[in-house]
Amino acid sequence: MSDSPMTSTARSCLAIVLAAGEGTRMKSDKPKVLHQVANRSMVGHVLAVLTEAGATKTAVVIGPGREDVEKEARKSLPNVRIFVQRERLGTAHAVLSAREVLAEKPDDVIIAFGDTPLVRTETFAKLRAPLAGGAAVVVMAFEPKDPSGYGRLITADGQLLAIREHKDATETERSITLCNGGLMAIQGDLAMTLLDKVGNDNAKGEYYLTDIVEIARELGHRTAIAVVPEEEVHGVNDRAQLADAERMIQKRLRSAAMAAGATLVAPETVFLSYDTSLGQDVIVEPHVVFGPGVTVEPGAVIHSFSHLEGARIASGAGIGPFARLRPGAAIGPKAKVGNFVEIKNTDLGAGAKVSHLTYLGDASVGAEANIGAGTITCNYDGYNKYRTEIGEGAFVGSNSSLVAPVIIGDGAFVGSGSVITESVPADALALGRGRQVVKEGWAVEFRAKAKAAKGK
Amino acid sequence: MSDSPMTSTARSCLAIVLAAGEGTRMKSDKPKVLHQVANRSMVGHVLAVLTEAGATKTAVVIGPGREDVEKEARKSLPNVRIFVQRERLGTAHAVLSAREVLAEKPDDVIIAFGDTPLVRTETFAKLRAPLAGGAAVVVMAFEPKDPSGYGRLITADGQLLAIREHKDATETERSITLCNGGLMAIQGDLAMTLLDKVGNDNAKGEYYLTDIVEIARELGHRTAIAVVPEEEVHGVNDRAQLADAERMIQKRLRSAAMAAGATLVAPETVFLSYDTSLGQDVIVEPHVVFGPGVTVEPGAVIHSFSHLEGARIASGAGIGPFARLRPGAAIGPKAKVGNFVEIKNTDLGAGAKVSHLTYLGDASVGAEANIGAGTITCNYDGYNKYRTEIGEGAFVGSNSSLVAPVIIGDGAFVGSGSVITESVPADALALGRGRQVVKEGWAVEFRAKAKAAKGK
Amino acid sequence: MSDSPMTSTARSCLAIVLAAGEGTRMKSDKPKVLHQVANRSMVGHVLAVLTEAGATKTAVVIGPGREDVEKEARKSLPNVRIFVQRERLGTAHAVLSAREVLAEKPDDVIIAFGDTPLVRTETFAKLRAPLAGGAAVVVMAFEPKDPSGYGRLITADGQLLAIREHKDATETERSITLCNGGLMAIQGDLAMTLLDKVGNDNAKGEYYLTDIVEIARELGHRTAIAVVPEEEVHGVNDRAQLADAERMIQKRLRSAAMAAGATLVAPETVFLSYDTSLGQDVIVEPHVVFGPGVTVEPGAVIHSFSHLEGARIASGAGIGPFARLRPGAAIGPKAKVGNFVEIKNTDLGAGAKVSHLTYLGDASVGAEANIGAGTITCNYDGYNKYRTEIGEGAFVGSNSSLVAPVIIGDGAFVGSGSVITESVPADALALGRGRQVVKEGWAVEFRAKAKAAKGK
Repeated sequence: MSDSPMTSTARSCLAIVLAAGEGTRMKSDKPKVLHQVANRSMVGHVLAVLTEAGATKTAVVIGPGREDVEKEARKSLPNVRIFVQRERLGTAHAVLSAREVLAEKPDDVIIAFGDTPLVRTETFAKLRAPLAGGAAVVVMAFEPKDPSGYGRLITADGQLLAIREHKDATETERSITLCNGGLMAIQGDLAMTLLDKVGNDNAKGEYYLTDIVEIARELGHRTAIAVVPEEEVHGVNDRAQLADAERMIQKRLRSAAMAAGATLVAPETVFLSYDTSLGQDVIVEPHVVFGPGVTVEPGAVIHSFSHLEGARIASGAGIGPFARLRPGAAIGPKAKVGNFVEIKNTDLGAGAKVSHLTYLGDASVGAEANIGAGTITCNYDGYNKYRTEIGEGAFVGSNSSLVAPVIIGDGAFVGSGSVITESVPADALALGRGRQVVKEGWAVEFRAKAKAAKGK
Repeated sequence: MSDSPMTSTARSCLAIVLAAGEGTRMKSDKPKVLHQVANRSMVGHVLAVLTEAGATKTAVVIGPGREDVEKEARKSLPNVRIFVQRERLGTAHAVLSAREVLAEKPDDVIIAFGDTPLVRTETFAKLRAPLAGGAAVVVMAFEPKDPSGYGRLITADGQLLAIREHKDATETERSITLCNGGLMAIQGDLAMTLLDKVGNDNAKGEYYLTDIVEIARELGHRTAIAVVPEEEVHGVNDRAQLADAERMIQKRLRSAAMAAGATLVAPETVFLSYDTSLGQDVIVEPHVVFGPGVTVEPGAVIHSFSHLEGARIASGAGIGPFARLRPGAAIGPKAKVGNFVEIKNTDLGAGAKVSHLTYLGDASVGAEANIGAGTITCNYDGYNKYRTEIGEGAFVGSNSSLVAPVIIGDGAFVGSGSVITESVPADALALGRGRQVVKEGWAVEFRAKAKAAKGK
Repeated sequence: MSDSPMTSTARSCLAIVLAAGEGTRMKSDKPKVLHQVANRSMVGHVLAVLTEAGATKTAVVIGPGREDVEKEARKSLPNVRIFVQRERLGTAHAVLSAREVLAEKPDDVIIAFGDTPLVRTETFAKLRAPLAGGAAVVVMAFEPKDPSGYGRLITADGQLLAIREHKDATETERSITLCNGGLMAIQGDLAMTLLDKVGNDNAKGEYYLTDIVEIARELGHRTAIAVVPEEEVHGVNDRAQLADAERMIQKRLRSAAMAAGATLVAPETVFLSYDTSLGQDVIVEPHVVFGPGVTVEPGAVIHSFSHLEGARIASGAGIGPFARLRPGAAIGPKAKVGNFVEIKNTDLGAGAKVSHLTYLGDASVGAEANIGAGTITCNYDGYNKYRTEIGEGAFVGSNSSLVAPVIIGDGAFVGSGSVITESVPADALALGRGRQVVKEGWAVEFRAKAKAAKGK
């Protein structure tokens, strides 16, 4: 989300993303970290942010049998390293699943989580900063509205002394408002030493990552905290928290779009994707949904009830209301896509109009062409897809069926209600429809019969 | 809304629902209790909850001439008893309109209101509980954010001494935060005795139900309170309060759906009905409306801008965006209903696709059939409706009109733009459209003429 | 928004609207005051409110080269006076750009701003009131949640002594919560005298309007304040504040509609225009957008996902879901407009039905006519538009194309899939489609070929 990735630091950085949690409270067949916010998986968000934050190597620790998580991680970051935590023996154990890359002794080690999609690029910079100054361990801290339940950070003279779990805290310690946000940065050449010293002499018999704070101090190292807003450490454990994460990330995306000069008439009804790009003076009316991969150039208007995905919309174009743009829709300058129109894998030329009740798939439409209401490109025969080409200034009459592959020449006309199976030369008129016949008085008799039938 | 109706108690229970209020502030021709929240009338909600709460007999007190309320009450609960309050002489008078069933001396009597649709099943259990312990009268109590205007509950030693109206309260009494929530439970064998002692010696000359508290105490009986959250006693007196009730009930419905394992990407934009059923791992995108009677099986995806009513959607199906399912739509496993598609009273087979701009009414579509864009079942002749049957694996070309009654056989093809009036055998190709003719150069002359006409 | 414009006062009133600001933070090519809330430009809102508030003459001060602002101002108020502020030398300088009308010495002068669209009619009355009592200058005051940054109002004995900018205020003055809301009323015969005395001996070298308070007092005049809610002085400086203004004005419009007896099931999802008129017992379901110029008569129902603009909907009509009404749509009593239907410049008779996937443009439809799914009026030939007339009780079969100009007589039938190019007499049946032919077994061979082609 940042144009200036913070990769300037000379220090190498290994990021380890813990993504082996089962997420039982999600009540889902899908691993928790694959659930999406703003149309990107949670683990995908974390990997993207880590890359922006300058991670030089990134590892993801997954549960056994989680090829789906591995696949998503590789899709997000092709050179990611994947490690499997075979047993669930605590967070320190999970981190040590990546022992192989820890052994490379990077300058900095970041420990992140696959289910905290709201962490920001600049937060990782903040977390790493004390390492450059010599701190051994840095813990992300936050001040929750209600600290109850969180581990408290016991500090003195700006140093972190220990992390005390809520249940183990004294009354005095519970009055501390600074809590453990989970993420950590560790001095790379100390990381494995510290982690290997973590024991499991506790109620659950698990190896806790948080123990490395006291271990580091016992070894005479300095420890530090980095305080961040509560939102950043928002973890997702159930569907309500997933919805909360979506709400928070949407708020960020909408604010950024408005700050960049787009009007969102009713921001709370507009849903953006992580990669939506809206130019200056773009107007987005209420109730619009952007799937991934949409770019809207300056001055275009997206009317209400539009659904866009994988589409590029040029300056001055008008979309909707009730328009659906699917991947590969490229809408030219000042072109118009109207209501109940679906466009897929189609170039629409400058000033072209597709105003109503139309499906254009696998087509190209020339500049200033007019596609009448009810036009359908018949691009699919049940097995293969074919292209339709419509020339500049062509006029396709209403309710026409263009049976691909077919070419409508520049300036050609297609009569309303035609089925076009052969290409039409430029400037020609093509008709493909029955001749009108009229049976006078027919309706009188019909009505009598139909009413009788209804009476039965 | 509860899977375990609390009908286990052995005590018989008469519920009397007061629904005779005029609701002047609603500014409506419709009686207040017939206004809907979550697609069910308010009185319908109350009756459903009372039944779940174990009411063994239920009576509704309506105003004179309110056949519409009677009808709705009977629709909600066929064996409901209806009583008419002929004059508006206060709440105690309203309850006594049901004297006939009070005379049957049930164990418990509950007094409920037709305009408090947010009361929960478990609340009635809480209200009745002290009766089993011997209390004569139990009053529902709540602590409003702003108690000003509410009747205050004067208590001592856990007993309710009196209900003091705000305007009659002393300064000390006004500092009481515990207020009268309206609902009551009364010992059945005392109910008529207490009610008959209520007088009308007050400013308005009305018989107030609240007076039975002091009457009971004067007769030496115990009285009690049951404290509930403010939301439960939310009464609806105008359209803004109706909207508030809708908001609160939607919040409950959405939370329950998420807790059960459905993803609502943006819960605040999804509107559920009182009976919507969403399976685990169902995904509902932003901006979806569920009318009554919808069941979505696990793993189906409901895309944005979909409107569903009376429909059943099987596992793995995809609906929308911009889909409308009407009553009797049954969407098979992994079937796909796309944009600008309306489906009514139609079975869609497994894996069948209806992707764009289609109306299917009174039809059946076989598994794996493909219905092209712009297909319309012509099921209505202005008087009668007829069925369309489409076989397995059939392929209906775009912009086709299927004039019912008609059968398209298994594996048959219908050419684009055809009007099909006679059944098509399996594996046949049917065409019903004009042959294409081309008039070369026609458009050149046309444009000249049309421009001239426009210039006029 | 008020039915009783407050024009009763006998005092003449000149309103000067400052609209020359550049609005840099909007990041827009469009002048700030032309951005819209509730589908009306901000300057248009202010001009409408001033007219309702009894301004007898109104002037707008614009920046140089801002013909677009002039045009919008004249559209909103034809007899508005336009003055250009050639240099940006402060607010007092801007007001003096209208010196010509100030010289006419109206009784009252109001100074308003083009970017505060939430100011109410009654607020201007409140602002002017002290002038009638002899005050020289009245300043609009408000108490912001966070007064930091605002000019503080220094008062004594109900009089305004001075306006102190935040940066110039002492610690004591900063504890004042009453702040300068910007709008002012000035005694007309003093206005020019006071304004001409404003100097520019300050850091920015600008002439500040606020200085006239101290000037008036030095001349022995009385000054006063008028306190209003914070919302009224909400100024718009960036897109986020524009969205805030929209949210606030929508809240007002929705509340007013509900108070008048319309049901908005989910008010937060319904977007009204400044002039939307909803009758009693109108029901608006979730997710509806009203563009300008819509009147809905009592008892009509607007279903979800409808988009209406410039339309009149008669009693008992049903619109949507997924309906789009465009300017000139007039929907008769109990008529029905269904899903994926667009209606433009068309009269729909009483009880007529247009249920699905239809475009009606430049048409009239008789009472009780039935327009089948997929019907399209072909009203445009690329140059000119033509009318379609459909008689009472006519039945237009599905997927028909009505090529205008054309008349379908009363009670006539059009067969499904017909292209109608010539008028149809009353009670006649018209067909215009190909005859069905069937090629048995065709699909078997086709599938073999198509699969082979796909394999390539």
